[in-house]
Amino acid sequence: MAASNELKLLSGWFSPFAMRVRIALNLKGLDYEVLEETLNPKSDLLLQSNPVHKKIPVLIHKDKPICESAIIVEYIDEVWNDGPSILPSDAYERANARFWGAYIDDKWFLSMRDMLGAQDDEAKEPLFAQMEEVLGRLEDVFNKCSEGKAFFGGETIGFIDIAFGCYLTWLSVTEEMTGRKVFDEAKFPALVKWAATFAADPAVKGVLPETEKLIGFAKFLQQKMAAAAAAPK
Amino acid sequence: MAASNELKLLSGWFSPFAMRVRIALNLKGLDYEVLEETLNPKSDLLLQSNPVHKKIPVLIHKDKPICESAIIVEYIDEVWNDGPSILPSDAYERANARFWGAYIDDKWFLSMRDMLGAQDDEAKEPLFAQMEEVLGRLEDVFNKCSEGKAFFGGETIGFIDIAFGCYLTWLSVTEEMTGRKVFDEAKFPALVKWAATFAADPAVKGVLPETEKLIGFAKFLQQKMAAAAAAPK
Repeated sequence: MAASNELKLLSGWFSPFAMRVRIALNLKGLDYEVLEETLNPKSDLLLQSNPVHKKIPVLIHKDKPICESAIIVEYIDEVWNDGPSILPSDAYERANARFWGAYIDDKWFLSMRDMLGAQDDEAKEPLFAQMEEVLGRLEDVFNKCSEGKAFFGGETIGFIDIAFGCYLTWLSVTEEMTGRKVFDEAKFPALVKWAATFAADPAVKGVLPETEKLIGFAKFLQQKMAAAAAAPK
Repeated sequence: MAASNELKLLSGWFSPFAMRVRIALNLKGLDYEVLEETLNPKSDLLLQSNPVHKKIPVLIHKDKPICESAIIVEYIDEVWNDGPSILPSDAYERANARFWGAYIDDKWFLSMRDMLGAQDDEAKEPLFAQMEEVLGRLEDVFNKCSEGKAFFGGETIGFIDIAFGCYLTWLSVTEEMTGRKVFDEAKFPALVKWAATFAADPAVKGVLPETEKLIGFAKFLQQKMAAAAAAPK
């Protein structure tokens, strides 16, 4: 087990990307220190550690920073390779896991972010459609990958589980704030069941925030987005 | 060496992403069949092989499709691991290579694509600035990574070399079409020298297209973009 002074995570409790890293570290049973960023102002350590993007999460391992959540998760899997494996061992399955991870990054995050800023139904409808499309594809992928097991990764949580699972509370927040059920058990039965198992896993349990707390943060973000949109260009 | 009936590449001679895959296959000394896509219409094989994005490149290995250029390059490196290594063997350096690969995908491609559609100097200036920023960062990364050797990857072409090198002809095309020198030896001496070495490498030589031919294609794209922008919504 790594000593906590070897592993520091520049994190934010609300960030799905930071949640990914915490889940991966937990899966490997690693001891780490969480440095919570306020983002305004950003800490000097964050600015020095990720000068290109200036974004959380950053994992600092023996004073060396690693940035970008999917890259950090792969790094953790490669360095601590005696625990349960996050990426599949087969090269083709590994490519498949990376493909779906990239797909989630590409298609899901923006739908949820834009939903926060959407003013009316006309703006929201295509975003709901996009979310449903992603959920439908992931339902299919789950049924193919899991082979009747609990996770995309099989018996244990893997790369796709982490890539999408980090959004579960944000999905609940989106449903609450829009008053619309998206993650419908009748439409996505396997995925809804997976989500409950994922959220209850010991590696995940303390990482996903409470929905109510995240709604507070989402409303704060929404106000910031509205103020930015109203500001003179 | 893989027999060509084992490895098919759904490709486009103009696509920097397809070029990445061809360079990786060449580096490994693999024999492969190139199936040139016309894109209009897209082939049934492309639609079946990449139903999510419907985009080239797709590598088909023993009838199984792998999509997304960076993921394909990693796949090639992992499956044919007795040739020269494309990703570094050290986990931290590997994370670093992936970081800069993702950075290039994020910051470079869109600048060049938007430049094609840009109508006036006001639209072009921020894109030139963005391109110069990327080149400046890559100049620094090269000086740090290469340790006086020819490539980002050291003695042989590696992941960052492929990720950025695939754009070299497109960069020349952008310069020709805008009448502005961007890739200036006085500003980016190490990178300009690297580019010449990269382009002359046997794994790359037949893959990067002629600038004049690519200009023809770029003008065709530009007309399509202008027509799409002028079409009623």
